[in-house]
Amino acid sequence: MKIYQDSSAPNPRRVRIFLAEKQIEMAYEQIDLSNQQQLTEEFLAINPLGQLPVLQLDDGSYLSETMAICRYFELLQPSPVLFGKSPRQQAEVEMWNRRMEFQLLLNVAHCFQHGHPFFAASKSQSAEFAEISRQRALKSFDQVNTWLAARPFIAGDQFSVADITALCAIDFARVIDIRISESQPHLADWHHRISSRPGSSA
Amino acid sequence: MKIYQDSSAPNPRRVRIFLAEKQIEMAYEQIDLSNQQQLTEEFLAINPLGQLPVLQLDDGSYLSETMAICRYFELLQPSPVLFGKSPRQQAEVEMWNRRMEFQLLLNVAHCFQHGHPFFAASKSQSAEFAEISRQRALKSFDQVNTWLAARPFIAGDQFSVADITALCAIDFARVIDIRISESQPHLADWHHRISSRPGSSA
Repeated sequence: MKIYQDSSAPNPRRVRIFLAEKQIEMAYEQIDLSNQQQLTEEFLAINPLGQLPVLQLDDGSYLSETMAICRYFELLQPSPVLFGKSPRQQAEVEMWNRRMEFQLLLNVAHCFQHGHPFFAASKSQSAEFAEISRQRALKSFDQVNTWLAARPFIAGDQFSVADITALCAIDFARVIDIRISESQPHLADWHHRISSRPGSSA
Repeated sequence: MKIYQDSSAPNPRRVRIFLAEKQIEMAYEQIDLSNQQQLTEEFLAINPLGQLPVLQLDDGSYLSETMAICRYFELLQPSPVLFGKSPRQQAEVEMWNRRMEFQLLLNVAHCFQHGHPFFAASKSQSAEFAEISRQRALKSFDQVNTWLAARPFIAGDQFSVADITALCAIDFARVIDIRISESQPHLADWHHRISSRPGSSA
């Protein structure tokens, strides 16, 4: 098995941290987004959507979508549990992970993709939408700070994939010049604790 | 248990069809999006994001996010399997469901939310981004048609939650005046088969 990825992008980082938390060794092959290597004919045969990460399985087939890859490894090696254990816990983790994806990561990614000159050649951009997304991302930082006042981890008492999603989204927000502010102490404390985990440097 | 929902919106429809396919009886309470009932103080106490659907559990607690609700019922009542069975099948269903969410449903929803006068009061809009999203949705209809040339269902040989997501996205695209075209015969055939299932009228 190996994973096609780019070291600078948030979704491949989610998978790298996920596997590090499970102490699963993996081979990685760099697909250079800065050279648009994900849009070459060769890579589009691997993932027609031209997105990273992609897992190549031992039978030569491919699996894409960050959460599909993470879930696959959760099923192959359940411990440590990162998607919740009981039906209710699994549903809670799914809810919180989705909230982190749609409120944090998607708004940050939209602001970056619609506002950065790098994407001008390959994607249709809207500077107006980039600004709307920036405002939503800022609001979500506040919202997550409020949620973390009542719980040590995003999905409650246990570290989960929702913390990984939130960490990657928040760190990636530096590309659009958004950082945790002094008015967000719960978010800052959580960020310090999660960043200090060995897996987070993967 | 009961589910707060709106009969006109695509995400509540995904849950209704999912439960109908599993033949799970459910009580539904209408939250009227056309009157912005999802933004009342009362409803924001149920889901601070002001989104539908929300499941109220028997202990009085709430679970939101469409896929969290569906997964919860998949775990409570696995048959018929709608998220895949083996680890590899579960990962495939996750991949295809995510593709249907991000390529189809999200683009359709963005075009609607950024282009329709109804949202002008409650959301920041970008007409420019609405048009970008429309073009992406049109392209995704073609892409899904191509994928369906090689397989009876979105995720392969079995009906799954990915078919439910795609059906709700495609039917909802009527609000932005996008329909399956004559140049998309595989998509048309699939749509006819999926629409004919008893659960699809839920």
